This record gives sequence, C-alpha cells and structure tokens, in this order.
Amino acid sequence: MVVGSCMTDLISYTPRLPSPGETIHGHRFTVGFGGKGANQCVAATRLGATAAMVAMVGDDSFGHNYLQNFRDNGVDITHVGVTKDAATGVAPIAVDDSGENCIIIVAGANLKLSASDVERAEGVIKGSSVVVCQGEITPETTLTALKLARKHNVKTLMNAAPADANIPTDILKYSDIFCVNESEAEVLTERKVKTEEDAYEAASNLMSRGCGSVLITLGEEGAIYVSKDQCFRVPAEAVTPVDTTGAGDAFVGALAYYLAYHPGLSMEEMMRRSCHIASVSVQAPGTQSSYPTRDSLPETLF
Amino acid sequence: MVVGSCMTDLISYTPRLPSPGETIHGHRFTVGFGGKGANQCVAATRLGATAAMVAMVGDDSFGHNYLQNFRDNGVDITHVGVTKDAATGVAPIAVDDSGENCIIIVAGANLKLSASDVERAEGVIKGSSVVVCQGEITPETTLTALKLARKHNVKTLMNAAPADANIPTDILKYSDIFCVNESEAEVLTERKVKTEEDAYEAASNLMSRGCGSVLITLGEEGAIYVSKDQCFRVPAEAVTPVDTTGAGDAFVGALAYYLAYHPGLSMEEMMRRSCHIASVSVQAPGTQSSYPTRDSLPETLF
Repeated sequence: MVVGSCMTDLISYTPRLPSPGETIHGHRFTVGFGGKGANQCVAATRLGATAAMVAMVGDDSFGHNYLQNFRDNGVDITHVGVTKDAATGVAPIAVDDSGENCIIIVAGANLKLSASDVERAEGVIKGSSVVVCQGEITPETTLTALKLARKHNVKTLMNAAPADANIPTDILKYSDIFCVNESEAEVLTERKVKTEEDAYEAASNLMSRGCGSVLITLGEEGAIYVSKDQCFRVPAEAVTPVDTTGAGDAFVGALAYYLAYHPGLSMEEMMRRSCHIASVSVQAPGTQSSYPTRDSLPETLF
Repeated sequence: MVVGSCMTDLISYTPRLPSPGETIHGHRFTVGFGGKGANQCVAATRLGATAAMVAMVGDDSFGHNYLQNFRDNGVDITHVGVTKDAATGVAPIAVDDSGENCIIIVAGANLKLSASDVERAEGVIKGSSVVVCQGEITPETTLTALKLARKHNVKTLMNAAPADANIPTDILKYSDIFCVNESEAEVLTERKVKTEEDAYEAASNLMSRGCGSVLITLGEEGAIYVSKDQCFRVPAEAVTPVDTTGAGDAFVGALAYYLAYHPGLSMEEMMRRSCHIASVSVQAPGTQSSYPTRDSLPETLF
C-alpha cells in the first residue's frame, strides 16, 4: 500500500529555457503520469504486486485521467479521493536541448489528503505487507500512515523525497526503512554526501535519529544500507541511460514489491534486484511508461 | 469565421520564476482556454455573433475539452479537425508574485492545420461576412484563408500576432484590415513605436506594403487607424485592470462582430465600441472567462 502523491507531469521540450518576461517556442509537449507515490505504486504493480493507493486528486480532467491510469495499472483506488477544493497536482517541466531542466511543482490536491483520509483506510493498512510513503503530501498525513502501519505490525518504507530539512523526527522513528538519495541525505544531515564513506556517515546520523534502518541510493554507484546489525553497498549495473526520470521511484516500488512478496530474501539481494529494475527503467523514455513488467524480465528476479 | 489557433493555457502561479536546474513549488495552477484564434472567435460569439472556427486540435484530452468549450460557446466546429500527428497546442505559463511571467508556446496541432483543410471550408468562407486570421498557424494556411475570402468578396481582418519579421507580403496584400499592437508594429517595420506619431509612421509603412487599411492598438492609449482616405485615433477609457491577458483578442473579436453585424457604423465607432469591450474584459480575471456577454453590456453597443 502506498500513501502518497499523484502528479500530472506537463513536459515542454524547448531549444533553451525561458528567462523572465520571455515567450519562447517549444518543439514538443507531453503529458505524463507522475508523482512519487503513484510512480512507486505503479512500479510495484508492474512486477505483479497487488497494491492500493491512498491519495487525493482534483475534480478535473487531470484527476479523472489519473484515476483511469490507476485502473489501467490494476491499482486499488478505493481510497483515492477526489476533491473540489484544489486542482490535481501538476509538475510543469521545461527540458532544453542540452537536457537541462526547470521544474515547478504545484501540489494542489495532494496537500488536501488528510490524516482522517488515511484513518479511513486503516483496514487496508492492517491487511498490507508494506506501507510506502514519500514527502509529497503533508508530514501529518504521512505520520498518520506510518503510525497506523506500526500499530498493525506492517513494515514501513519511507522515501523522504523531496527532502525537507524540517522533517518531523517521528517520521524517522516510525520508518522501518528510511530511504533517500545523496542530495536528500545532504539536506537532512546538513553535510556533503559525495563518497561512499560520506554516505555511511549520513546513514549513521539518520540511524541515531531513530530510523529502523537507512538506505541511501547513490545513482550509478548503487546504494548503501545500514541497520543495527549490517552495513553494505550494492553496486549498480553500468547502463547507458535514455531517461533517468523516475528511476528512484522504480527502485522504491521494486523494493516494496520484494519486501511484500519475497520477505525471505536478504536485504542485499532485494536491493540488488531493485537496482536492476531501476537500471531497466532508465533505458526507456518516460516515467511510468519506462517501468518494466514482470513478463519482460528474467524469471530469476521472481 | 476565424481561421486560427487553439491553445490550452497551463498557468502556474509561483513565488518567483525558476532558474535552470531548479525545482520550485508553486501555490496555484489553472488550466484555461486560449489561443488567439479561439479567443477572438469566442469574444465575437459572446456579443451574439454566429461564428465558425477552422482549426486543428490533437486527439487528446486537451483537444476534446477544447471542442466542448467551442460547443459551450455556440461556435460551429464542423471545420475543427482532430489530428493524431501532434498534441493540442499548449502554452505553459509561469507567473510570479510580482506579475512577471515567462511563457512557452508549443504550437503542436495548430501547425498541422493545412491549406487543404481551409479549402474544404470554402463554402463556409463564401457565406461569411468577415474572415479573421492571426499568426499562430502556418503563413501558408493563413494566406489560403485570406485568398479564398478575397475571391468571394468577404472582408478580411488579419491580426498579425505574434509578430513575424518574415511575414509573407501577400498576407498584407490580402488584408482589408491589418491589425497589430505597438510591439508587433515594431517587429514588422523595424522601427520604434512609442508615440502616436511613431504609430502613424509604422501604419504608413505597412500601407505601402499593400494593406487595405492598418489598425494599431496602443494599450491604454486606444488605437489608431489608417486607410487610403482616413486616419484617426480612438482613445481608450481609463480603467483599473485586473488581468490584461487576452484583451487584444477581445478587441479583435469585437471588431469582427461589428464588421459583420453593424457594417453601417463608421470605422471610428466600431473601434470605440471594441475598445470598450476590451476595457470590460481587463476588469475580470482570465482570458475567455473575462469576455463579456451581450446581456451584461449596455444596449447602446448593439
């Protein structure tokens, strides 16, 4: 189960990025399904997970299209609300010919997902193997989800992205696995995270704040993991990326799948397989459209 | 009849405008119906005109929503095509707290509207009182529309916006009224247009290139008009604007309405009334949503 965000990505491809006061002509425009929560949920369902989403969209065409996208991906949307009080979350993105981008995020309806919306989903949380959260909804709502999961002994996977330097300490305490990338680790620990050693230091800082375990993704260097009784790095495969958008979400979604469906695997093996899934996703364009389905992957991953 | 563009405006309101490589959070997002062609067509129908649109949208939700918007405004969409070859035109716009903006235009399906699409509408052109064009579709398509109108003795109103320094001379020759604002006049004549005198000089430059008459809008200074036998300025009313987006299109749409339905009025009176309609539109937020309907206006305008 994922308690998190839905965003409609509005991507303009332009020769260069516009300056204030300027009107420029772009060559292409695409609309995509994004938002870290929904991405992770869809990544997990592509691998065969049965997943439910707790989220909020606006009562507009982006929102209704998103509901259809969830249906198309077999996601249970019983707890996806539709609000008239805000527009569906959007991320207008401009990408120039050199690949440089600028991103605006208007969270809209995502911020209307309340603690009581999550409480109404307690029955689904109770019946889940894993609850996954991210940083694109209010911290209060996220914390409610993590606490309800803990109450029912359901494993929690918290992806603290985007990073918030003022993240409530309770969110770390209620995270069985607290997952961030290098730059998010930097914001949360207020120190540079450039090397593997830096990453271990950041992880031990986060552990000291109450996380059950800490996972830091390092892009093409793979990921490290630190818990009370183990500490290791999993390497990533060398691939030539086509589009890295949403690769982190592919990793988190895959990890959630393995935690739920292959709990007997070692953490190291789950992370190795999740890195592989993420590396497959960067070799195709788009976000959710790049997430591989079980039938396109080797049987050894399942 | 309007032969021109449809664009979906995607407006993000942000504390400041994003720099390259940056992700910023906006406070509000709205989707609006825009595109100069469609705006002018809707402005005219609001005043009571029977209007048809020749345009092209993409086979996507923005396109289908736009068709519904035309239906809601009573616009004849027999000649609005739906293409699978490009997305509906969009204008992602960021507006910061100080009102500064940056605009990306991805013309998409608008550039797929072809000369032959216009030729198929010859019967409608022949039956029209006025054909209105703008610069957001290809010059070839615009020219086809202007030539067919001329063939059938239908008055042509060409709004050369956005300005294109390489505009084909034939477009000017086939324009009974060639309408631009100050900055467009500057681009087309390669000279500063700051004063009323500058505007008359720009107009005579454009007249010498073959226009039937030239109309230059001057914002809160009103507009000037130059033809073979007259030359005058119409003042605008002093109003406190709320949102000037689309005010130029309100003016052009209103002028098209008066040309079609009140051909006995003097040009000066038509322009005076059109300025009034534009001044009403700037006192309400939004683009098409700010265009007044006949029943909200004094009877003396009709």
